[in-house]
Amino acid sequence: MTKKVVLVVEYDGSDYKGWQAQKFGVPSVQENLEKALSVIANHPVKVVCAGRTDAGVHASAQVVHFETDVERSERSWTIGVNTYLPDTIAVVAARYVSDEFHARFSALSRRYRYVIYSSDFCPATLSKGVTWTHKVLDVAAMQKAAKVFLGTHDFSSFRAIGCQAKTPFRTVLNFEVHQLGQYVVLDVRANAFLHHMIRNFAGVLMSIGSGEKPISWAKETLNAKDRTKGGITASPSGLYFVDAQYPEIFNVPKRPLGPHFLPYVDEPSYELPS
Amino acid sequence: MTKKVVLVVEYDGSDYKGWQAQKFGVPSVQENLEKALSVIANHPVKVVCAGRTDAGVHASAQVVHFETDVERSERSWTIGVNTYLPDTIAVVAARYVSDEFHARFSALSRRYRYVIYSSDFCPATLSKGVTWTHKVLDVAAMQKAAKVFLGTHDFSSFRAIGCQAKTPFRTVLNFEVHQLGQYVVLDVRANAFLHHMIRNFAGVLMSIGSGEKPISWAKETLNAKDRTKGGITASPSGLYFVDAQYPEIFNVPKRPLGPHFLPYVDEPSYELPS
Repeated sequence: MTKKVVLVVEYDGSDYKGWQAQKFGVPSVQENLEKALSVIANHPVKVVCAGRTDAGVHASAQVVHFETDVERSERSWTIGVNTYLPDTIAVVAARYVSDEFHARFSALSRRYRYVIYSSDFCPATLSKGVTWTHKVLDVAAMQKAAKVFLGTHDFSSFRAIGCQAKTPFRTVLNFEVHQLGQYVVLDVRANAFLHHMIRNFAGVLMSIGSGEKPISWAKETLNAKDRTKGGITASPSGLYFVDAQYPEIFNVPKRPLGPHFLPYVDEPSYELPS
Repeated sequence: MTKKVVLVVEYDGSDYKGWQAQKFGVPSVQENLEKALSVIANHPVKVVCAGRTDAGVHASAQVVHFETDVERSERSWTIGVNTYLPDTIAVVAARYVSDEFHARFSALSRRYRYVIYSSDFCPATLSKGVTWTHKVLDVAAMQKAAKVFLGTHDFSSFRAIGCQAKTPFRTVLNFEVHQLGQYVVLDVRANAFLHHMIRNFAGVLMSIGSGEKPISWAKETLNAKDRTKGGITASPSGLYFVDAQYPEIFNVPKRPLGPHFLPYVDEPSYELPS
């Protein structure tokens, strides 16, 4: 009998050309994970994730499901699978889940953190895990500007040219900017995201934080509904997929919010949208 | 007129075959740094460091000196040089220093931190910056065992077979074991270290922490004065050169103790040995 399994997966995206399996020889998180799961399952496994990430983007808690005919312990689907994965990908939780569950279509929202490191000097020992700026950032200004993005809007100004979504409308449920020592962390939750949406938010907020642009520029950019009026697309190296929210009935495993090198790791979960 | 400059350098060792410049095509921190300094100096530059690190070993604050005939600002020797360095190497401080200074011979002591991450799952987003163990570690046992290494001893049991030091005697001035959430950090200061000495300390202490060996095994190993009676050589990926101490007269720049992703970064400096 076919059963469904949900996994929580952490990965360092710097070695991969993104989540999605591509043509032969292009390293992807999906292909590595499917190969390792297929060894344990002893049959070919295809996975579906909550949110596909670009090249160089990381995840502390990507959510994934797959179907299998075999019975294995949850330990086999985590520690067992990890023995066949590179060190930069790890399954950190596994659970059998009802057949109605779908990692993509059941998700109510996705949450990302974008980690900026502000210092005169590039953090050499963490260069691929943060976005470095030598500029001093005015976090209060960034917090004010970020409020503009809350709610349902046409986000065309923050949408990559090649984005294949059917509509440019998305609902941003939370958008916080935290300062933690030399780190500035954007913490964003939305029903779903357009291609490059968070990196384009980061580009605008970093320009506002550095004083190159006024706070009002966030609203101007949003209202323009035109990508060419937006800011730069900030580097993928600071971006982490940290959570996906599902109806409680599915009992999807949770883990502390990452990335785990931050001075704080966890904080109370947001309320589900009503 | 020839002048001497002291630098503090941070690097992620995972991309390099160690500190020392080797034959053509073998990536080293030293070669990259000398090339970048030579561009700014406009003449060939040779550097000397406080403590040469092995392949895969990192530094949050390696200390380096070099000589130059040219006048440049301290900003040129940091931010200027960094523009010619890979992202995984950064000069974080520079200062002109008296001609008597020597990064290696003036050093009174060196300090390293060895960062272990204890969890069921490999930390995929920090896999090259820590040493992972799935075992639960008894930190109190490790702290007790580490005290055995304090003072002046024949450390032959902790010395790599190929070590070229003239004597196996070294003086360990401090040896602390800290628990910081899932991190266990060995913090060791000695006048100098033998080849692989800290990684061999880590091998013994991890076996004691996991309960495979009793606390008394640390003393037995030390007393054996025989490498074949020692433990494993633990992975280089958790090892960081974090400080070198010099007589105050040289006024060498200091920075907060790394690695900077740890939940705590700094703590009071040790007293100079009297």
